[in-house]
Amino acid sequence: MLKGKHLIDLEEFSLDEIREILDLSKEIIINPERYSDVCKGKVLATLFYEPSTRTRFSFEVAMLRLGGSIIGFSDPNGSSVSKGESIADTIRTIACYADLAVMRHPKEGAPKLASKYSTIPLVNAGDGGHHHPTQTLTDLLTINSLKGKLSSHTVAVCGDLKFGRTVHSLVKAMNKYENTKFIFISPPELKIPEYIKDEIDSNSYIETTNLEEVIDDIDILYMTRVQKERFFNEEDYLRLKDSYVLTKQKIEKSKKDMIIMHPLPRVNEIATEVDEDSKSVYFDQAKFGMFVRMALIIKLLGVEIDA
Amino acid sequence: MLKGKHLIDLEEFSLDEIREILDLSKEIIINPERYSDVCKGKVLATLFYEPSTRTRFSFEVAMLRLGGSIIGFSDPNGSSVSKGESIADTIRTIACYADLAVMRHPKEGAPKLASKYSTIPLVNAGDGGHHHPTQTLTDLLTINSLKGKLSSHTVAVCGDLKFGRTVHSLVKAMNKYENTKFIFISPPELKIPEYIKDEIDSNSYIETTNLEEVIDDIDILYMTRVQKERFFNEEDYLRLKDSYVLTKQKIEKSKKDMIIMHPLPRVNEIATEVDEDSKSVYFDQAKFGMFVRMALIIKLLGVEIDA
Amino acid sequence: MLKGKHLIDLEEFSLDEIREILDLSKEIIINPERYSDVCKGKVLATLFYEPSTRTRFSFEVAMLRLGGSIIGFSDPNGSSVSKGESIADTIRTIACYADLAVMRHPKEGAPKLASKYSTIPLVNAGDGGHHHPTQTLTDLLTINSLKGKLSSHTVAVCGDLKFGRTVHSLVKAMNKYENTKFIFISPPELKIPEYIKDEIDSNSYIETTNLEEVIDDIDILYMTRVQKERFFNEEDYLRLKDSYVLTKQKIEKSKKDMIIMHPLPRVNEIATEVDEDSKSVYFDQAKFGMFVRMALIIKLLGVEIDA
Repeated sequence: MLKGKHLIDLEEFSLDEIREILDLSKEIIINPERYSDVCKGKVLATLFYEPSTRTRFSFEVAMLRLGGSIIGFSDPNGSSVSKGESIADTIRTIACYADLAVMRHPKEGAPKLASKYSTIPLVNAGDGGHHHPTQTLTDLLTINSLKGKLSSHTVAVCGDLKFGRTVHSLVKAMNKYENTKFIFISPPELKIPEYIKDEIDSNSYIETTNLEEVIDDIDILYMTRVQKERFFNEEDYLRLKDSYVLTKQKIEKSKKDMIIMHPLPRVNEIATEVDEDSKSVYFDQAKFGMFVRMALIIKLLGVEIDA
Repeated sequence: MLKGKHLIDLEEFSLDEIREILDLSKEIIINPERYSDVCKGKVLATLFYEPSTRTRFSFEVAMLRLGGSIIGFSDPNGSSVSKGESIADTIRTIACYADLAVMRHPKEGAPKLASKYSTIPLVNAGDGGHHHPTQTLTDLLTINSLKGKLSSHTVAVCGDLKFGRTVHSLVKAMNKYENTKFIFISPPELKIPEYIKDEIDSNSYIETTNLEEVIDDIDILYMTRVQKERFFNEEDYLRLKDSYVLTKQKIEKSKKDMIIMHPLPRVNEIATEVDEDSKSVYFDQAKFGMFVRMALIIKLLGVEIDA
Repeated sequence: MLKGKHLIDLEEFSLDEIREILDLSKEIIINPERYSDVCKGKVLATLFYEPSTRTRFSFEVAMLRLGGSIIGFSDPNGSSVSKGESIADTIRTIACYADLAVMRHPKEGAPKLASKYSTIPLVNAGDGGHHHPTQTLTDLLTINSLKGKLSSHTVAVCGDLKFGRTVHSLVKAMNKYENTKFIFISPPELKIPEYIKDEIDSNSYIETTNLEEVIDDIDILYMTRVQKERFFNEEDYLRLKDSYVLTKQKIEKSKKDMIIMHPLPRVNEIATEVDEDSKSVYFDQAKFGMFVRMALIIKLLGVEIDA
């Protein structure tokens, strides 16, 4: 039963609960009309203490397409609700108005703290470099929908594996499905942290700095951005950055049914020439993100769907 | 008949009109479903020339829970609608789009001026230190709902009574009901102004600097914040501030059915340990604020409710 | 067929397509109830890379009065959707969420570029000094509704004719209707550009610096603002500005059925004493703007209206 739960860290949801959300997402994709009014009369509060238009839109449109409505603020200036006020008081007030809240906050742990005082379900929409569980749900739905299953995939993650919270969360989630293999592709400066690898069977992953060497083994290629400011010096950055820009040429030898994912926004880590390739699914991913949030809202609100 | 009226200053509404709003609020509380669609097709414009997320949310959610919809801006930057434009022109344009408008403005009198040019009902959501009539309606509904009546209460207001517009407005409103007694509790620097006391029968109030001395006489304890910047020097502030912070210990001798109110946001003038006490109703107050605004919107729009 | 089209520059729409929109606008004006739910379940994205509250409100309220809903941002800070992201990627993401998008952008050509990547209809809500096609549609609907036809009018445009994009667009549009005569009234510094005049038959327009000389010939008087910063020196500005401020006295000799239009906001180029004159239709114009956008949304979405 997900009704009334908060979603702060996806680790707190069981595999069964995740499957419940993914299954409902797929039903919504097939028959969106059926769900277009199920949240009529319900109000979602979007509390964005730092701007993230893309994530905000995704939640808002999910609620609107269920027939619900929205209140919220979208940047630090808007958050006067909390001027000198504790986050506990803010969420208790919001809970008087709304049926469900989504919080984005620059400080790690803020949504967790708020959830302790919230009488309505609260969803973490990103807290600093910490968690962003609905991005991971989005990635799982994308993989499940486009590859037909969540187990037995070779998942390559490429780019900045040290700081990318999206990647850490995806690796932890995929590691729970049977027979997943990982390929970690990054410059030495940006390798995946030990504490993530510690959770994975040592026979289930390899590390490399070279994408082209492993391209023909990959089922799912998850790209992330290599940010200049992560490097100690300019030379290293300039030397390395092009190795992690995906081009048509680099995917020539890839499997026919490989898919290329990216959490967006993309800057230059995937050349636009790759967009036309049917393997590129990053814009589909955005659409899956809307559907998975629709399912999540329905589940957390415990909305009854007529048979 | 409230249909088509503006609400700029609560003094302009008769006791009968106020009762009409409070009565409808209570009906909505009992049967919200009945009202969930009565404003379908109606649009509320929220014109916030200074941010006040809490007040904005309260109006927005009121309209949404009546089935209506919202346009608006929420901070001075958003108010380009008025760039170099007179407030008269702005409201005349808004009246082309919306059915009802709510205005918050840093300048006293701005909503009054706008109302003169408005062909749609306009509600003042706070103009400088001047009026904030829906806060007072909220307070009246809270008292009426939780104490069963508006007459024959001993109302203590505590803290900054000099500058607190919420308090002035509440005192003037409660003074119209029979047999109200007031206790004004404040440091000498922040006493209630003479022009407020002049309206009250001299046998109907006392003034004191000491909350604990009078605590057992109080039916309704209305707390407000004592702001540092109101004092001439730091020592006075430090000496006095703790006297006006409500603690569990200070309410030990209070009546069993005393209620503690606060307009929120609270900073530290009520210790969080008091929150669990059933006498604390400040979060309920926020919810009453939503219901009273729902009733106000229905009345000003003159929406017909099917019997 | 307008379904699925973008509207970047009104020149791209045929006279038949424009008539289709104006005809539907008039039907909506007569029977708004009939259209109050036709966009139920549809989402409009308002992408305002520079603030323009008035234009944003007009689109939003149009969609809301059709039963649809809204996502969007309203100023450059909100537009984090595009932080470091190409406009192509932004619109492709938005197209995953919304059914129709409206874009305002400070850079000329940005909406055109975006439309090339958009799988949903995109409407230009103003790009720098370039196009603002829905303002022109608003003007055409106003003229057609209040004067009964679009042909055979003497249209005077007065004020800054050099930089005013609204005027250029209106002149190009009206020039397509039979027997339109133009009177261009401006200081010599702010004359209408040659490339606009080149499109008009030389017998169909006159130029003058003096409004009062021609006032009795005018059917439609379109006022615009004369901005101080357009002049080389202060003296010229001071000498000229009053000539282009409309007063009661200046319109005394005008035709009985002349109408006075202005795109709003008005600063001081029309004295407020003129507002009460029944010839003044600039606030009606704002209302026509809402209706024409309702019609445009229906047409671009290809919404079926039950007979």
